[in-house]
Amino acid sequence: MYCLLKCAPLILAVAVCHGWLFGDFVRKQELNEISLWPIPQKFQSSAVAFKLSPASFQIVHAKQSSAGPSCSILENAFRRYFEYVFGDLKSRKKVYDSDLVELQVWITSADPECDGYPSLQTDESCELFSLPPLCSTAPQLVYEDDYGANNINKTEISDFPRFAHRGILLDSSRHFLPLKVILANLEAMAMNKFNVFHWHIVDDQSFPYMSRTFPDLSQKGAYHPFTHVYTPSDVKMVIEFARMRGIRVIPEFDTPGHTRSWGNGIKDLLTPCYSGSSPSGTFGPVNPILNSSYDFMTEFFKEISTVFPDAYIHLGGDEVDFSCWKSNPDIQKFMVQQGFGTDYSKLESFYVQRLLDIVAATKKGYMVWQEVFDNGVKLKDDTVVEVWMGNKMEEELQNVTGAGFTTILSAPWYLDYISYGQDWQRYYKVEPLNFPGTDAQKKLVIGGEACLWGEYVDATNLTPRLWPRASAVAERLWSDKSVTDVGNAYNRLAQHRCRMVKRGIPAEPLFVGHCRQEYMGL
Amino acid sequence: MYCLLKCAPLILAVAVCHGWLFGDFVRKQELNEISLWPIPQKFQSSAVAFKLSPASFQIVHAKQSSAGPSCSILENAFRRYFEYVFGDLKSRKKVYDSDLVELQVWITSADPECDGYPSLQTDESCELFSLPPLCSTAPQLVYEDDYGANNINKTEISDFPRFAHRGILLDSSRHFLPLKVILANLEAMAMNKFNVFHWHIVDDQSFPYMSRTFPDLSQKGAYHPFTHVYTPSDVKMVIEFARMRGIRVIPEFDTPGHTRSWGNGIKDLLTPCYSGSSPSGTFGPVNPILNSSYDFMTEFFKEISTVFPDAYIHLGGDEVDFSCWKSNPDIQKFMVQQGFGTDYSKLESFYVQRLLDIVAATKKGYMVWQEVFDNGVKLKDDTVVEVWMGNKMEEELQNVTGAGFTTILSAPWYLDYISYGQDWQRYYKVEPLNFPGTDAQKKLVIGGEACLWGEYVDATNLTPRLWPRASAVAERLWSDKSVTDVGNAYNRLAQHRCRMVKRGIPAEPLFVGHCRQEYMGL
Repeated sequence: MYCLLKCAPLILAVAVCHGWLFGDFVRKQELNEISLWPIPQKFQSSAVAFKLSPASFQIVHAKQSSAGPSCSILENAFRRYFEYVFGDLKSRKKVYDSDLVELQVWITSADPECDGYPSLQTDESCELFSLPPLCSTAPQLVYEDDYGANNINKTEISDFPRFAHRGILLDSSRHFLPLKVILANLEAMAMNKFNVFHWHIVDDQSFPYMSRTFPDLSQKGAYHPFTHVYTPSDVKMVIEFARMRGIRVIPEFDTPGHTRSWGNGIKDLLTPCYSGSSPSGTFGPVNPILNSSYDFMTEFFKEISTVFPDAYIHLGGDEVDFSCWKSNPDIQKFMVQQGFGTDYSKLESFYVQRLLDIVAATKKGYMVWQEVFDNGVKLKDDTVVEVWMGNKMEEELQNVTGAGFTTILSAPWYLDYISYGQDWQRYYKVEPLNFPGTDAQKKLVIGGEACLWGEYVDATNLTPRLWPRASAVAERLWSDKSVTDVGNAYNRLAQHRCRMVKRGIPAEPLFVGHCRQEYMGL
Repeated sequence: MYCLLKCAPLILAVAVCHGWLFGDFVRKQELNEISLWPIPQKFQSSAVAFKLSPASFQIVHAKQSSAGPSCSILENAFRRYFEYVFGDLKSRKKVYDSDLVELQVWITSADPECDGYPSLQTDESCELFSLPPLCSTAPQLVYEDDYGANNINKTEISDFPRFAHRGILLDSSRHFLPLKVILANLEAMAMNKFNVFHWHIVDDQSFPYMSRTFPDLSQKGAYHPFTHVYTPSDVKMVIEFARMRGIRVIPEFDTPGHTRSWGNGIKDLLTPCYSGSSPSGTFGPVNPILNSSYDFMTEFFKEISTVFPDAYIHLGGDEVDFSCWKSNPDIQKFMVQQGFGTDYSKLESFYVQRLLDIVAATKKGYMVWQEVFDNGVKLKDDTVVEVWMGNKMEEELQNVTGAGFTTILSAPWYLDYISYGQDWQRYYKVEPLNFPGTDAQKKLVIGGEACLWGEYVDATNLTPRLWPRASAVAERLWSDKSVTDVGNAYNRLAQHRCRMVKRGIPAEPLFVGHCRQEYMGL
């Protein structure tokens, strides 16, 4: 007896499909509730159950599949999910008739690009279906019965994401995040069907990205030049670990503000601030009036565009403080020359415009924070504008999409803001398309991101603070718009978080209760 | 060259003194700030420095000491602090003149009760002083110099706690806390000079305490009868681990409310609630009108009084919901018989009074939550009343101490309530004696507790949520009243939290920055 998993896209098939096939390891509760998270677009299950045994069960490539054993993404995923299901269970010798012995994976992608990277265009749809008479039942889901045996119920699934961009922002500048923490959270992202790691890698406080072109950036800008940096090899590992899980890595190099740490390694990059008629010794945003600034950015982003394979780079552009620019007499003179008057947002736009041209020349697309749009900078058509400000969020979505730009939403999902109680419900209740606009405008909202800024977060508390709060965002971005029942979500999410705990992710509890296997790290 | 540590009390000498001797491993910063936490009552340090080498340095018993190598508390502490200081450093062969080679520990306690337990009366004072000409400099503090070598500066210290009761409440009922988590937090408590572990061990949600007398309590009341319980051996380990660190273990068995889980194992213990004229199937607080309830409590607390060596048991008594009692016709009848009218707090007092008599018969003292006092229950003179309600806290302190009762304060330190930002400062700024009252009343406030209730806390997030926020409470309860500079505290606490991280405690960051050694767990 065997069943078939048919997946259109190779790259994400595994990460996505296994989300409900093996990822969402289910234990039946009194509720008789299937604890899928996020819930698939369509599924139906029945009481008919088969057993899975580590001795007999195999995941194999279907004959029709366009991918085979040479595809490392699939082989890695088979291993990963096999271990999730069977763990350290001993094999038994005998195979019974009621055993489900094979899962065939049928990749339908014309181009089985096993070495490619996931992209915004990747089709993440996937189906589990029966193939009579070989498998008279429909495909099913794995759960443990009351005796701890692995079962899979008759279940039909057809699944695809509601939004194409489902991201997590982590900030490795306010605190350095050891590689191990980043990898563990990529793993957790995969368990929750997130497909974008927005890596806010540098900021004012530190510059841990080790640049081959400008090694002084991290040598002088990181908290420590050896222990608190991401080497080229570290970055590669993050990208590959993410690729195996269908996750894109979009790095953010935020300018012209949020750049204090850049100034340590690059002479004259930042604007000298003045106190009266003399320099105060402090520095402001990138100096937008020097050609050397643009020369540097050209070289720097040339490197970034080769190191990070994703089609997009996030260029930041948020929260530029004008006070330093205002204090500097050279900048003042430049403002007059350019006819900017006293409108420093025009100077900001001047800088951003040139930067965008520089990055566009590398053939990359770019993402920016909403201020760049708000300030009227001319953007390429494929620019993704990230709406992060909580006030007037609907108005901003209306304006950005009204201007024809692709948009992602993070404003309601700043997970660094914590409060007592079940704030996941607040994240869960957000409807991203709830703003005034045409259908065409709504289509421009391609997803959202849960942001965990790092002011109060490091390796000690990041993971339990992120999960399962971000899981609420995961379901909002994946499942159908109609999936809004908080009570039902609570029951599924409580089980999903125990599943994460079982797999070594210290996801915090939703409320009182217990997991069969409690977290055993510290 | 050697130095002398003179400690009056044996039991706590090590846990306390080493707080600043080896516990507070100091790295000099640009600030040239000594990062002691909590700050000692008196200390003075100079630039004169000596080196410590794992080859030559020894901690030994002074000739005058009343304790020797047979004292396990001291031997354990010597080993623990030696490892803190030297870690896995390789020994070098040569000993230099500038090496500090010996720390002599002089216990002055007349009764070197190495097998005893810490108590409320334990004298925790301690001094480091020089012994010319053998040690021409005063004793000092260990820190790493810029080359990573261990140094100790000339420092004089005389220290004692401002308050005798400095507790942490952990709740192992809302979520089960694996033994490992409890032990790690006892370790962190010792690093912060907390000396009471208030173990809120059972509650409505689960009964993990395994009772020898009434095994059904945990068999039927725990989340799981084997994996989610504390066996007698577990409890012993907690108590012994705490004893080694000068920490008292005060268990709380809260009645008559907060007892839902008790009802699973003990028939007729809880009040059957009524819906109209028939039982609704749900249960309320302990049934106060049945003799069997008191018979049970007599047996149960007889066991508790032998299992837990501390002189005090916490009996709870908070948040009794009267609605179930009100619904029950037998209770209504009893109210009439007793002449209580409709004042159910009189019924509560009736129960508590009998319970206190039962516990008093075991020769234990008791602690209670403030409601027990508020309801006018007659209390033994040595009762400790815990003030936990945030509103009218000063008035309550005034009333409780005015009535002559010993008091501890936890109202401002409910650490389960979280918010964005540096809430440790709020905890730090509390002045426990800031209420209207005489000097005699003020003296009755013997300390306080930081409470981490478990509704949203389990093994995944407890430790980073507790530390270093509880450290703020630690210094408030230990150091002099005049120690109130938040900026100075920030600098010391940021280093102290890195010290905890280095020792494997995932204490979360105060704000942006880094530790030389980041947390390497997950």
